[in-house]
Amino acid sequence: MTSGTPSLEWTDLDKKAVDTVRLLAADAVQKVGNGHPGTAISLAPVAYLHYQKLMRHDPTDPHWAGRDRFVLSCGHSSLTQYIQLYLAGYPMTLDDLKSLRTWGSQTPGHPEYRHTPGVEVTTGPLGQGVANAVGFAMAARRERGLLDPSAAAGESPFDHHVYVIASDGDLQEGVSAEASSLAGTQQLGNLTLLWDDNRISIEDDTNIAFTEDVAARYEAYGWHVQTVDWTNGGTEYVEDVQALWDAYQAAEAVTDRPSFIQLRTIIAWPTPNAQGTGGSHGSALGDDEIRATKKLLGFDPDQTFIVDDDVIEHTHAVRERAAAERETWQTTFDAWTSANPDNAALLERLKNRELPAGWDADLPVYEADAKGVATRVASGEFLSAAVAGLPELWGGSADLAGSNNTTPKGEPSFLPPERSSAKFQGDWYGRVLHFGIREHAMGAIMNGIVQHGLTRPYGGTFLTFSDYMRGAVRLSALQELPVTYVWTHDSIGLGEDGPTHQPVEHLASLRAIPGLDVVRPADANETIVAWKTIMQTTDRPAALILSRQNLPTFPRGVDGYASADLVSKGAYTLIEADGGTPDVIVFGTGSEVQIAVKARELLAAEGIKARVVSMPSREWFEQQDASYRDEVVPPTLRARVAVEAGVALGWRDVVGDAGRIISLEHYGASADYQTLYDKFGITPEAVVAAAKDSI
Amino acid sequence: MTSGTPSLEWTDLDKKAVDTVRLLAADAVQKVGNGHPGTAISLAPVAYLHYQKLMRHDPTDPHWAGRDRFVLSCGHSSLTQYIQLYLAGYPMTLDDLKSLRTWGSQTPGHPEYRHTPGVEVTTGPLGQGVANAVGFAMAARRERGLLDPSAAAGESPFDHHVYVIASDGDLQEGVSAEASSLAGTQQLGNLTLLWDDNRISIEDDTNIAFTEDVAARYEAYGWHVQTVDWTNGGTEYVEDVQALWDAYQAAEAVTDRPSFIQLRTIIAWPTPNAQGTGGSHGSALGDDEIRATKKLLGFDPDQTFIVDDDVIEHTHAVRERAAAERETWQTTFDAWTSANPDNAALLERLKNRELPAGWDADLPVYEADAKGVATRVASGEFLSAAVAGLPELWGGSADLAGSNNTTPKGEPSFLPPERSSAKFQGDWYGRVLHFGIREHAMGAIMNGIVQHGLTRPYGGTFLTFSDYMRGAVRLSALQELPVTYVWTHDSIGLGEDGPTHQPVEHLASLRAIPGLDVVRPADANETIVAWKTIMQTTDRPAALILSRQNLPTFPRGVDGYASADLVSKGAYTLIEADGGTPDVIVFGTGSEVQIAVKARELLAAEGIKARVVSMPSREWFEQQDASYRDEVVPPTLRARVAVEAGVALGWRDVVGDAGRIISLEHYGASADYQTLYDKFGITPEAVVAAAKDSI
Repeated sequence: MTSGTPSLEWTDLDKKAVDTVRLLAADAVQKVGNGHPGTAISLAPVAYLHYQKLMRHDPTDPHWAGRDRFVLSCGHSSLTQYIQLYLAGYPMTLDDLKSLRTWGSQTPGHPEYRHTPGVEVTTGPLGQGVANAVGFAMAARRERGLLDPSAAAGESPFDHHVYVIASDGDLQEGVSAEASSLAGTQQLGNLTLLWDDNRISIEDDTNIAFTEDVAARYEAYGWHVQTVDWTNGGTEYVEDVQALWDAYQAAEAVTDRPSFIQLRTIIAWPTPNAQGTGGSHGSALGDDEIRATKKLLGFDPDQTFIVDDDVIEHTHAVRERAAAERETWQTTFDAWTSANPDNAALLERLKNRELPAGWDADLPVYEADAKGVATRVASGEFLSAAVAGLPELWGGSADLAGSNNTTPKGEPSFLPPERSSAKFQGDWYGRVLHFGIREHAMGAIMNGIVQHGLTRPYGGTFLTFSDYMRGAVRLSALQELPVTYVWTHDSIGLGEDGPTHQPVEHLASLRAIPGLDVVRPADANETIVAWKTIMQTTDRPAALILSRQNLPTFPRGVDGYASADLVSKGAYTLIEADGGTPDVIVFGTGSEVQIAVKARELLAAEGIKARVVSMPSREWFEQQDASYRDEVVPPTLRARVAVEAGVALGWRDVVGDAGRIISLEHYGASADYQTLYDKFGITPEAVVAAAKDSI
Repeated sequence: MTSGTPSLEWTDLDKKAVDTVRLLAADAVQKVGNGHPGTAISLAPVAYLHYQKLMRHDPTDPHWAGRDRFVLSCGHSSLTQYIQLYLAGYPMTLDDLKSLRTWGSQTPGHPEYRHTPGVEVTTGPLGQGVANAVGFAMAARRERGLLDPSAAAGESPFDHHVYVIASDGDLQEGVSAEASSLAGTQQLGNLTLLWDDNRISIEDDTNIAFTEDVAARYEAYGWHVQTVDWTNGGTEYVEDVQALWDAYQAAEAVTDRPSFIQLRTIIAWPTPNAQGTGGSHGSALGDDEIRATKKLLGFDPDQTFIVDDDVIEHTHAVRERAAAERETWQTTFDAWTSANPDNAALLERLKNRELPAGWDADLPVYEADAKGVATRVASGEFLSAAVAGLPELWGGSADLAGSNNTTPKGEPSFLPPERSSAKFQGDWYGRVLHFGIREHAMGAIMNGIVQHGLTRPYGGTFLTFSDYMRGAVRLSALQELPVTYVWTHDSIGLGEDGPTHQPVEHLASLRAIPGLDVVRPADANETIVAWKTIMQTTDRPAALILSRQNLPTFPRGVDGYASADLVSKGAYTLIEADGGTPDVIVFGTGSEVQIAVKARELLAAEGIKARVVSMPSREWFEQQDASYRDEVVPPTLRARVAVEAGVALGWRDVVGDAGRIISLEHYGASADYQTLYDKFGITPEAVVAAAKDSI
């Protein structure tokens, strides 16, 4: 490779350490009786190269801001990461490795964020890690832009690299394809992906399903592509670590494109019989095979979990390299802090995910207006008003910016300037994200952005296409990441585009996801408070569900209408029954709250007293104390009606046996929305009839 | 191009007809006030070429077995298809075009299968159509293999072509990437995809998000790739229909690979001001622009919906070509019928989706067994037993064949023989599908297979990855397609792989989808009956939810246990309370039914009489008459407990206010499954406590 690149030292002790890794992987899976040994064995030198030679990281401080990021997209091979964490001296012991995949251990089946120090991201669902890594690389650029935009390339304390190891499975998944294409557009020079091209997956030889030229595909995406063939065309397997090292050096020298390294390997090499087999992917090797491998590698076949002192002493020395690198880094960082006190304060604030004082002083407030505003429009106005005070808030859409109202006014796009279009001005450090028509990658990229540490992304599409991105949404919730999903066109209320675009089951199905806040505001003011509440939440993702059509803006604080501030409680009495003491409660969310309000009037004309409860978020309401909940929904008041333009599933919990639910149990149709509400019986009159029935 | 290919006749009248198409598109959108005119205008000659020159089809019989298939993946441009159906003489009138996107019309916002004659598939959610078309092409090969395997290529009445038109958005979606890669592996020579490369999407210039070399990517997939540039490198726009025709001829000459034609266009060309703009994609052009366009094309600007007699006469003549082609085809078909009476009978049976007599005579029956069988294993045994009698039943897995038990014994793979591996023998007409790790494409391909008409596919993955494929699952349900999803590893019961792999919310979220039957059998015998019931259903998709772990096989017809045949009713009394007249009903599904049964014993020891209701399918149960439902769940018996290893959402409907639900409201963990059930409190003891509480 190019001269002047760092040289690789790879001694016999390194080789012994790598063989130690292989046997630890084999033993750990064998002990618990299940797991994925094959890749952990053959990729041992690759993982070791990362943690011992390549990456800047500090085992004594897994959260060090100067660290490179590592994503094991093939999370099933979790031992690939756990064993390196152990050898490098992270909080990971040999006993932890012996406890693989057991209750309460530091070593679950797949790497888990927030669970195991040194794990940057939960992986396992294939393809996600590749997209997370793209998010990491994008976040690194945005964060640099916020904190140290004028530093020369590579000179900022915020410059670092993102490494991802991906398997065949990762690269078959559409989500990785989407993210990889976008990474090419974004010219993410700080990203290097290694593809473990072992041509084995669970159904064995990938020739039955994966015959494309993957390297050529990544070239088509605009990546820098290299191939290292340890199989030497199938003739002889040589773990040429130097060649791989050289490829990494070349990759890092290319700073205007992400890098793709195709590494041809044989799974489970050098085990004598399991190598190259699908069986080694996901099953314990068996005692005989492990003994044979130990013999082959010069280890004692009668021992398990062998780690010689010289090995651990050698690998722990990475801490010294880390200390030296950290000292250098700290000098740079301290100089930056002194020179940039405001940005240093910003960094502290962002690290703690604190909001600045007064950030919400100038948010829009809407006057009562029967014609009203679409909640998607109010959401857009929130963004335009809020972003000046919240540099951490950035986002965009999966090609529906104008429909999702996700572009704050006057903000540049996060784009290489050469990609600017007539409509969008690109800036390396810009704010507006253009995901393309790639919902799944959008979700996974946002997860990576949050995990990178400092910023808060949002991403928009139509609610119906939340289906395309559930794999990522679930991981937002599982990892407690404050990602905000902006899902507009939230019901049959979108009208003419018809049933493919009209969500019906989506509210229910999203409410089913543990840890996801589903928030469907009823008018413009509710939308603003919903956004405020979301921004005050740092450990959960939110789904903001917004209307395409205008919704009336309710009066606030007059005519009996409550303040929209109560949205933060998840549900509240929007307007009490005339004369107090209601005969019935009518619950609504979003665009159906206006129907509840009209029904209340119709009922009043018949002498029936109805309370209208706006319930934008079931999850927020459940977090309130019992006294508040009982105040809004008195347990003794059993006459209840819920109205929502979606399936009833889940509403029985709210309305009880005596309650009635006005819902939509089938798909929509293509017509104007007023016709659809009428034809499908989601009307004030239907609510009135249901209320009488319930009473 | 090669000499000897059919020549293209393209007269002034054809040109006038194409211009008529453009103006109909502009007028139709303008009349309703919303829609997508741009692509319908610029692609008018392409669509016209398909329906008037290229495809074999019969407007008088949209279901003609000899027809080529057409998929408009960019369904938002539905006028592209509707106007051609009108011109060709399908049951589509000018009034229908005038009713675009209105209630009850033949012309909904996006093309809808089963709604508009001539529409082969519902499209709109981007990327799906590409994958559906791959399914069409695969189904065509499989069906040929069943009916006419020994005919020479192109000589069978079942040989035909599949055409798909895709937009930028379609090719950004991961689902199309997954399907296109598989199409390369499968060497689908009967498939041609046209990419409308107009470089405009809703966020305008695609340079901000879509900069990859798409043609190179398709080459990497192993497709035959051609480019036709109507922009002449941006110098001058010439609709060189001859060049496009030649490209199609060349594509059809390549029979060992799918074909990709990149057609460079300008959206909304030749409108004077809207052309090349994002605005023309999804908004009406406005009267002025339409008038200007009419002038430009030599039409009367004061008229709308102009169709001159000579145009419609000319385009209706396609019926004559169809009649001639059909006559030729019919001769071949009749000869085939005479020569192959058995296969002709099979064709009739498959067309009607009828099951053959006695198909279920030899299905497995399982003896009572406390150790039991995993329901995924029973499902595999069903397949091995059933496939001999059901040639229409075929399927596979997204690389989890061994885990999903989706491979019937002794059946060859549907694969080019050269792709055979040591584990899987490929056969052009094989039965076992290898989707690779591409869940979303698997779903969409299965939709296409069903829509093609004769066969019934199933596809497996882990239940948690149903999230990856919801976009396709929804379309199975919306289109009433009898696709069977085999989702194994259905709960924390999968154990050590941990929370990323453990479904928690999935049962609830799938039950939310209208028209999808969610079926979770409790033991091996229930699994067999579930499969039988699914095979007897022809208008709904089913999700078969199966355990990884062994489940006890209950006695049947003895000791008070009911027959598993009652599974077809969705819920049934598995075992009545001792002495009849229960104090409480305990509902369970799948692996939790055994917990209900144990709880019943514990309750009996305390003198409490519990009925155990196994409820494999809420949807099937809801289809029963009220008397049966009341018999199983007496309305007056309010003491009820449900136990399911997932979120409670939806169970309140079953158990009512007085009921109790033993559920899991958070994510799982990595450990053996017995530990997880215990730690998370999904136990007989918890059911007992809940039952007492409910009473």
